Amino acid sequence: MAETLIIWSYDWVPAGTPPRGHVRDIRLRWACEEAGLDYEVRSVPFDDRGAEHFSRQPFGQVPFLDDGGITVFESGACLLHLARKSEKLLPRTSEGEAQVLQWTIAALNSVEMVTVPWWFIGLSKPENNPLDRWMLQRLKHLEAVLAQREWLAAGQFSVADLLMADVLRVPGVLAVGNFPRLRAYVERACARPAFERAHDGQMAHFAAGDQHRQLGAERKT
Amino acid sequence: MAETLIIWSYDWVPAGTPPRGHVRDIRLRWACEEAGLDYEVRSVPFDDRGAEHFSRQPFGQVPFLDDGGITVFESGACLLHLARKSEKLLPRTSEGEAQVLQWTIAALNSVEMVTVPWWFIGLSKPENNPLDRWMLQRLKHLEAVLAQREWLAAGQFSVADLLMADVLRVPGVLAVGNFPRLRAYVERACARPAFERAHDGQMAHFAAGDQHRQLGAERKT
Repeated sequence: MAETLIIWSYDWVPAGTPPRGHVRDIRLRWACEEAGLDYEVRSVPFDDRGAEHFSRQPFGQVPFLDDGGITVFESGACLLHLARKSEKLLPRTSEGEAQVLQWTIAALNSVEMVTVPWWFIGLSKPENNPLDRWMLQRLKHLEAVLAQREWLAAGQFSVADLLMADVLRVPGVLAVGNFPRLRAYVERACARPAFERAHDGQMAHFAAGDQHRQLGAERKT
Repeated sequence: MAETLIIWSYDWVPAGTPPRGHVRDIRLRWACEEAGLDYEVRSVPFDDRGAEHFSRQPFGQVPFLDDGGITVFESGACLLHLARKSEKLLPRTSEGEAQVLQWTIAALNSVEMVTVPWWFIGLSKPENNPLDRWMLQRLKHLEAVLAQREWLAAGQFSVADLLMADVLRVPGVLAVGNFPRLRAYVERACARPAFERAHDGQMAHFAAGDQHRQLGAERKT
């Protein structure tokens, strides 16, 4: 029997969505839920990221994965690692694998490479976001792709869709233009029961973190 | 015998480095040179990117790869696809594979996700680049990693180093701080004969593109 996968996330993150509902452990939870893989979630401190954390995630981020002693960081890498465990995430044909791989990397390196810096710059509320036009252009290309199909790769929902939908559902991203197909795509992906379970799981995890912090604060007073 | 791999790039790009020497077909050339894989380079027009191009690369970019009828776009996906063909790019142990995978994705989604938007914003020469601090922080974490090792993953040069070095060698990136180990790492990677052959190959390809354009212009006059 396969060992239980361990997904590491923070013990707590500030209230608000994002970050809650968008911390990237949700990608791994979602993949496990789609594939029916056993997993548990463990925590590292959000506040004090020490040498132990950096030894497992050199940029001080989450998630990271422990698969029976094989450890992996970077949500995209964890997803590709998990995807090999189930045809529900990655088809077993050479052509299907190549298609899922290219769209997984496209989500990480052609779309999220623009959306995350765009979001980051937007936090300081500049008059003009210098990445607006670039993001709009990338999303237009993607809107054209989704005119022709329900899911990105290999004629099935795959780990590439899980990732792309998670990238696109960040509040504000699809509001920069008119993207009916991208909106429908994100809705379709997020209506999957596996996403709902993953999302509920993350929200409950951080709610438990709130309680722990409150108890800790009460003990100190 | 394996079929010759076909790497698609532009027929021409404007003079200057970058773009010349940095168009991402170089990543695929470099991987093939390291692994001793047969390849040839073919071109799509830089100036007129039509439906045919978008059908093969939905964001209108290069490179894309043809591996005996299996097609892949996104340089990161092409690298992971090619890496499976040689232990020189990807070790064959589960642990080694996981390490190379995580560092390949780290190059794409934790480092290049900052360096490329940083570079893009820098083109318009703003007084302050809003991504300066974020990039500095990411590079500091990476500098710390390279205090302990020569290559990123699995105790050997791999496709992860090829990619990370290509990300870091973009002019200006390492000039934002003091990164002696990152500089030495990039020098080490780019001193490899396989890189030199890939680089020379790309420069010659675009020089041939100059000649074609000149001939075309002469014919029109």
